[in-house]
Amino acid sequence: MTNETNRAWTMASRPVGEPTPKNFALKESDIPEPKHGEVLIKTLYLSLDPYMRGRMRSGPSYATVLEPGDVMTGEVVARVQKSESPLYKAGDIIRSSIGWQEYAIVSAHTVKRIDPDLGPISTAVGILGMPGMTAYFGLLAVLKPRAGDTLVVSAASGAVGAVVGQIGKINGCKVIGVAGTDEKCSYVVNELGFDSAINYKTENVSQKLVQIAPNGVDCYFDNVGGPVSDAVFENLALKSRVAICGQISQYNAAEPPQGPRNMAALIRTRTTVEGFLVYDFELQHEVARGRIAEWIKQGRLKYMEDVVDGFENAPEAFIGLLNGKNFGKLLIKVAE
Amino acid sequence: MTNETNRAWTMASRPVGEPTPKNFALKESDIPEPKHGEVLIKTLYLSLDPYMRGRMRSGPSYATVLEPGDVMTGEVVARVQKSESPLYKAGDIIRSSIGWQEYAIVSAHTVKRIDPDLGPISTAVGILGMPGMTAYFGLLAVLKPRAGDTLVVSAASGAVGAVVGQIGKINGCKVIGVAGTDEKCSYVVNELGFDSAINYKTENVSQKLVQIAPNGVDCYFDNVGGPVSDAVFENLALKSRVAICGQISQYNAAEPPQGPRNMAALIRTRTTVEGFLVYDFELQHEVARGRIAEWIKQGRLKYMEDVVDGFENAPEAFIGLLNGKNFGKLLIKVAE
Repeated sequence: MTNETNRAWTMASRPVGEPTPKNFALKESDIPEPKHGEVLIKTLYLSLDPYMRGRMRSGPSYATVLEPGDVMTGEVVARVQKSESPLYKAGDIIRSSIGWQEYAIVSAHTVKRIDPDLGPISTAVGILGMPGMTAYFGLLAVLKPRAGDTLVVSAASGAVGAVVGQIGKINGCKVIGVAGTDEKCSYVVNELGFDSAINYKTENVSQKLVQIAPNGVDCYFDNVGGPVSDAVFENLALKSRVAICGQISQYNAAEPPQGPRNMAALIRTRTTVEGFLVYDFELQHEVARGRIAEWIKQGRLKYMEDVVDGFENAPEAFIGLLNGKNFGKLLIKVAE
Repeated sequence: MTNETNRAWTMASRPVGEPTPKNFALKESDIPEPKHGEVLIKTLYLSLDPYMRGRMRSGPSYATVLEPGDVMTGEVVARVQKSESPLYKAGDIIRSSIGWQEYAIVSAHTVKRIDPDLGPISTAVGILGMPGMTAYFGLLAVLKPRAGDTLVVSAASGAVGAVVGQIGKINGCKVIGVAGTDEKCSYVVNELGFDSAINYKTENVSQKLVQIAPNGVDCYFDNVGGPVSDAVFENLALKSRVAICGQISQYNAAEPPQGPRNMAALIRTRTTVEGFLVYDFELQHEVARGRIAEWIKQGRLKYMEDVVDGFENAPEAFIGLLNGKNFGKLLIKVAE
């Protein structure tokens, strides 16, 4: 790889169902010089996250959807290579939403400085970044758990779920994780301190919840939707809360998936179901980031990264993410 | 009819799917004398309401479910015939949850006096009773509309929906009703002052909402569930609220009905969906009753009753209610 050419992954075509490598295309371009007020940045880590599948879909969305030929959406940890702004100097480490590419020219006002004292720079797009903020606010601001509450989190070993469960423990909850392999289940219980875990591929989630959450589920942090959610909805406690964070089980569906109509359950238990986005809490992100960093330093919050080496591997890693193949926060290491 | 025998409608057998007359049986019994602290009451009006279908179902419920042979659940407006309590005297008009029967002996502490100054006594189980309270609290305490909000209410001409829409107008909302006949649609617009109405049997609800609620639906008061709700979910506004009051379209289903999984829509719009029961707000019922009575006197709230004469007609009327055949609050007139 020479540093004289920029490479970017674009959406070559809109996937129908599960994305395939053919839906992505590598595009090369020259790297221009930054103008006044701009910086040239070089990607070190690219964050891969489930929400990106939504950007590839047409139809209503909370964000601009991709058109064929557009660079894939994404946030990176990057180094300032050249600066034409007094805000940054060459060598500064920042994060920026430049998408899946190796270099970009951006206005200095749009990038965010990374504080290396808080943790390794890769965590700025992980536990100290969007996934960590999502966990913190979805749990503490949407679900508002009380000590003693039973909290269920789906995709429990993922970048968001692992943080949700651990903050749930800090908050005095009984925490049950749902994940798709015995290895992930063992990890959240033995490494992260969850009270129990359910492997949704080998166990009956609803029946197991009857046993291990006999008083019902007070809080459900939902990353997946689908049959796992159906099972949790059968076990809600009175005045329970459900936070809809993601629905990864549905993202690859070509046709709208069908499931049981279970709204009547919400009447019986007077449950509140709420969709949220991490950006709704942006004013409070810095406070949350500081708290999470502190909990990590105290050893109360752990995290795991699944780092794939090489920019060229981004599409394959992303396709795996949608199938639960990653174990921990998925990152592409693009450069040293 | 002699007054020497009590008649009660019991659930003869648990319905599978739509109830039929065979699921009900008329049981006769003697009328005992009230003992100390008790009153003998005689039913004047029996209220028929969709929730009763839930009592006929087995499985988890917020209330005790009926077993075959039990008297059908229900609230009545009744007259005290004999009193062995200082709380009531013969001739007093009260309401009581004695179920579908003509007479009952009840503890005087369990009955509620009806204030005839508030309105005709039949309204004590209608707009001034459970349905009116349901509308008031589901709208004002759960949905919390702001002036200017677009409010959609399903089963718009029903005992609850008609009150929801009119209080929505008092609250400064743009109100859209969804109902199943042109007559009902015309009634809610021309008589009750709704801004518009959609006949879900002849119109495409989602497409019509795009036209008449171009900024989306801020508040959805859901009495029906099913495809009507699917259409509203496609048109939710940012930070919208959905109150799940009833799901009458689902109550007769023998198997759990299937529908599109639409939780992802809640993320995009940051919507809150909440199930509630009127009894959760019992401490505030008297305040609400006074306000509703005042609005009726001011001509700002109208109501319509669908009164079926004769206790023997209760099962047929109830079966019709579940199919939307009533027009207004359904009551059985049992005695003068």
